[in-house]
Order: sequence, then C-alpha cells, then structure tokens
Amino acid sequence: MHRLQADHLVSLVTELFITAGAQADDAHCVADHLVVSSMMGIHSHGLMRVPPYIEQLRDGTIRSGAPREVLQDNGSCLLMRYGWTFGQVAACDLIERGLKKAAEFGTACVVGRECAHAGRLGAFTEQAARQGMIALGFCNSGPHGHFVAPWGGREGRLATNPLAFAIPQGESGIIASDFSTASMPEGKIRIQLMKGEELPEGCIVDAGGHQSTDPADFYGPPRGAILPFGGETGYRGYALGILVEVLGGLLGGQSMREPSPGNGLGFVLIDPARFLSGNLFNRLSSELRDYMKHTPTAEGFDEILLPGECEARAAEEARRDGLLLSDELWNPIAEWADKLHVELPVVPQR
Amino acid sequence: MHRLQADHLVSLVTELFITAGAQADDAHCVADHLVVSSMMGIHSHGLMRVPPYIEQLRDGTIRSGAPREVLQDNGSCLLMRYGWTFGQVAACDLIERGLKKAAEFGTACVVGRECAHAGRLGAFTEQAARQGMIALGFCNSGPHGHFVAPWGGREGRLATNPLAFAIPQGESGIIASDFSTASMPEGKIRIQLMKGEELPEGCIVDAGGHQSTDPADFYGPPRGAILPFGGETGYRGYALGILVEVLGGLLGGQSMREPSPGNGLGFVLIDPARFLSGNLFNRLSSELRDYMKHTPTAEGFDEILLPGECEARAAEEARRDGLLLSDELWNPIAEWADKLHVELPVVPQR
Repeated sequence: MHRLQADHLVSLVTELFITAGAQADDAHCVADHLVVSSMMGIHSHGLMRVPPYIEQLRDGTIRSGAPREVLQDNGSCLLMRYGWTFGQVAACDLIERGLKKAAEFGTACVVGRECAHAGRLGAFTEQAARQGMIALGFCNSGPHGHFVAPWGGREGRLATNPLAFAIPQGESGIIASDFSTASMPEGKIRIQLMKGEELPEGCIVDAGGHQSTDPADFYGPPRGAILPFGGETGYRGYALGILVEVLGGLLGGQSMREPSPGNGLGFVLIDPARFLSGNLFNRLSSELRDYMKHTPTAEGFDEILLPGECEARAAEEARRDGLLLSDELWNPIAEWADKLHVELPVVPQR
Repeated sequence: MHRLQADHLVSLVTELFITAGAQADDAHCVADHLVVSSMMGIHSHGLMRVPPYIEQLRDGTIRSGAPREVLQDNGSCLLMRYGWTFGQVAACDLIERGLKKAAEFGTACVVGRECAHAGRLGAFTEQAARQGMIALGFCNSGPHGHFVAPWGGREGRLATNPLAFAIPQGESGIIASDFSTASMPEGKIRIQLMKGEELPEGCIVDAGGHQSTDPADFYGPPRGAILPFGGETGYRGYALGILVEVLGGLLGGQSMREPSPGNGLGFVLIDPARFLSGNLFNRLSSELRDYMKHTPTAEGFDEILLPGECEARAAEEARRDGLLLSDELWNPIAEWADKLHVELPVVPQR
C-alpha cells in the first residue's frame, strides 16, 4: 500500500496527462476529478482511470482541446458538441453554461454530445448545487456499454446509465446522490469473478435468460446481461434507465445504435430562489436534514446519513490523512510515470 | 362483481361529486381521472377514492372551486397555491400553465401547494407528453403520510413519494412511468394484513427496527416503518424519496413538519423541439422503443414492455369491455348514490 497526499497526486496525474498530450487546464480538471473520486471511495471513477485515459490520449480517443460547438442555443435549452474531449472537461463546461442559463431563465436543460468518458456524474451536479442550484444529471453510453437488459429481457440494451442529483442547503452543504440504474456495475461483476465469489441474487441473467449468481454467466460467451436496479420491482430501474438514455443521449440527437466511445450528458437545473425568497429554501432544506438525521436507527445501523454524506466524510479523511493506494492501483501509474519521464512524488511505503 | 361502462361510471361519479358540493368542471375532471386509473388497473388511485372524496367534499377538506393564487411567476418558474381544491384539478391546471411556460422558455418548473389528494401522478406527466413535452413529476405528502424510514432508520420520515415521467414518441404514443420511491404502498400492506398473508422480504421494519414480513408489525402499536425502494440498495430509493420531497414540497415553501391534508406537486417540463429539429426526437424515441421491444426474453417473460404499456393495454381493454368492479368497491359507491339520490346506471350483474 502507498499513502499519498491528494495534492501530490493531482500534480502527478496532471503532469502525466500533459505529457500524454492533454492541454494543461484539461489535465488539471480531470486529475482533480479522479483524485476526488478516489478520496470519496468511488474507485471505479477514480485513479484506476489514469492508465486508460493516458492510452486514450495517445491513441486519439480522447481529444483534449477539441473545439466546442454550440449546436442549439434556444431559450433555456442548450445542445453542445464536444468533439470527444475529456468528458469531465465537457461536463464542467456544460454545467457552467447551464448555470448561466438557469440564472437567466430560472430553469435550464443542457445536453452535451461527443464527450469522452465523463467519470463520476455526481461531481457535476454537486458543482451546480454548490452554486445554489438544484441539479439533476443523466449520463448514457453507446452500444459497447449496453450490458443492462430491459425488464424481462436477457440481452443488454441499456448501459448502467447513472442518475445524479444535488440539492443546495446553504451552510449545511449539499445533499448529493449519484447511482447506477442497473443492479450492479460491470466492474463489480468482474471483481467478483476474479475473487471467485458469487453475486447477490437478482443481479444478472445468463445467456439463456435464467437468473444466476455466478459472475462467469454474465461474461459467457455467450454473454448474459445485468438486471436493472430494483429486484422484484426492477421495472422501476428499467424505467429510470430509459429516462437517463432519453435525457443523456436522445436529446443530444444520439441514436442508440450508433457506436460511441464515450458518454452523452444531460443536466436539468432549477433555481430555488425563483420560488422562495430570502433563505427559506435553505431553512427548509436544513430542516429536512435534521428530520432525517434524528430518526431512530434500525438494526445494523448506528447513524442516519443523508445521501452523499458518507462520500463527503471519506473525502475529508483522505484530505487530512492522504490516500491509501493498493499496489494494483499504484503500480500502473508509476509505470506510466517512468515511461513518460514524469517525476514521482515521494511515496512513503507502509 | 359488476361490469360497468367507463362513460357510465364517469357520469355517475361526476353527479355524486356535484351533489356532494363540487363544481361541475372539477367533478368531471376528477371522475374521469379515477375511472381511468381503475381502467389501468391502478386501483389504489381509482374508484376506491370515490367515498372518501365525497366525505372530504362534505366536511370541507376538499374545497372545490377554491381560488387559485399565483405566488411566484418568475421566468420559467411558477409557484401556485390551490387552497385545497381537488389535487387532480390543481395538477391539470399546473401542467397547462407549465406547458405554456415550457413553450415560451424551452423548460419550466411549476410547483403547486395546498392541493388535496392528487391521485395518480402519472396522469399529469402523460398529459404533458401527449402535447409533445418531456415531463417529470414529483408528489409529496405531509407528516400524516410519513410511513417510510430513511435508509437505516426505523421511523417514518418520508411519504411513499411517487416519481413519474413521460416521454413523447410522436405516433408511437408515449413512454410513461409512475412509481413509489417506497418498497411498497401502505395500502398494499393493509391488504396483506386483511388477507393474513406475509409480505416479501425487505419491505418493512417493526418498531424495534428489525426487518419483518408480518404486516401487523408495521401497524403496531408501536408502529414500524416501510423501507425505501431498492432492497439491499435502498439508499437509492431513500435518495429519490428526498428528491421528490424537495421538488414536490420544499420548493413550494412547505415545511416537512407542517400538517397537510393533501399533496404538494412539482413538475419539470422540457421541450425536445428546442434540441432537435424536424421529427428527429420522435424517430430516435421510436428507435429506442423498437430496440427494447425486440430484446429476447428472460425466463418467465414472453414479451418486453415499455414503461406504461401494460397500463395502456388494460385501459384499452376496459374501454372496450367495461370495468369489472368487486362488491367491496361498488357497494359503497352505490350506497352514496342512494344517500345522495343520484340515479345509478343499469348494472348488469355477473
């Protein structure tokens, strides 16, 4: 294990991306995003993405600095084409444009197409909520990510399509939620396969359409499918997956059958100040927080958390104590640093 | 069992509501809403509501014809106070106002406070989608309906807070979803209790915070709580329940602790024509429909349905063959007709 300070990691990853061909601003934005995701414990969208992003910068899949094109600027609606720049850079830009629209009109819907992998969707809804705006976020993927079966199906037709939202709460911070509309991300099934462990019930079907707890049945060949979120009521997760596809993909003009190496992004922004004057919204929002947190706990729990609170605490701890990276995570990054002649920060071994 | 034609039922219920004090337009709007919900098989929001609505009209809980007040009209945002009129009447009005806003700005967020029970939330998002608009709907309830525990809690702090959305698809109709963010509605737990049957795992905790499948453990006393939707990942249902509370309640200025005999309503509307020209959105949306429907089926399924398709078929069948009402449902309505001297349609017994 290796313990590193967050700011050292941001500098290192920024330098790696620049050396691999990224523009300096883009490199810093994405490095910060990945480090924060890892700090929050959301490793699937954290530093494990550094090696593939370097490869994608080098092979041209990620086009840092690609021109941004406004395809529609129509009242409170905006459609952008990002030309396969880093998804995080596209999303930050899209949110900033959305904030301006929502400040002007009260609400906005902004959609971005041709974004490379965007990482942790919640990062962007949180960015908006920290500026006082209620934000909903939707992120689709092209056919290569269609692992998730419709309700009642046995072949993938939707990606794990995350849905995020964030609610401002004034001084109490924000309420932030970000989850997949599938029962389980593909990466987690792969981890169970490598560990030789079973999946919980209700997560996958095999290629014949029978429910299974064996991760190998998902990969086949022939491949099975991931089930939508919700178990016995998985038609709800399926419906949410479609909503994400519509707002993240279709509104951007993206056909579900069209190959795409990245993500489509959609955000809806709502300004609570257009509804309630003074700080009434923040007061009601803090009251909601207190009302939830003072609920007596159920068996197996010792505290009630608001959505996003667990991740915020993990990030705070990592900010203070540094991040603990496994060899598996650290070594490929260190190898790239060596290959690209980027100096490593001092890494105290543990 | 009693089989009645939908239009006969609408006439009867309209007459009952008028006789109980409702304005004619309101009575017809709500009667139609309840009959259609029953036709769709959504009985909890259908004709079983007729007797309580009559009682609430007579005791002044529902105030048909209450003045409507615009509290905020601010860009694409609108906040209305409905003075405890029928929730269905309020919601239809709110959607119509929202459609005008979205036509003007491209997006809109409209919130209504002081609505009596609003019935089936999806009815209103569908109303918007039939006019070409993407719609999201959120409906909260006051403390009397706080049956649902936060994730990790053992006391109710949220209502079953439904979330609905509808997507226009041109000639293919609409995709329509409407579901509770709780694992199970209270009414369904009551039915299991009356039948003496167990609940599925993961739906409730008893007053001590232990998971239970005995419906009596929910009612106590002391009362237990309904768990949020999502089973092992019920933190997702909890998060969605909070989102509904914020957009249906807080944005209307409603405190979670304030007693309320009805619902708060929030709708977000997005005009796809602001993003895509011609009928591209409808084409992509029909393509999504076909892509889903042609998925090979899993074990136990013989067809893939789009969200809302099952309810639409049930309604079509009921339109053709009439509605089949149990004695339990029909007799209280017939008794009210007798008491209020309203003539019954001819009811062929079966």
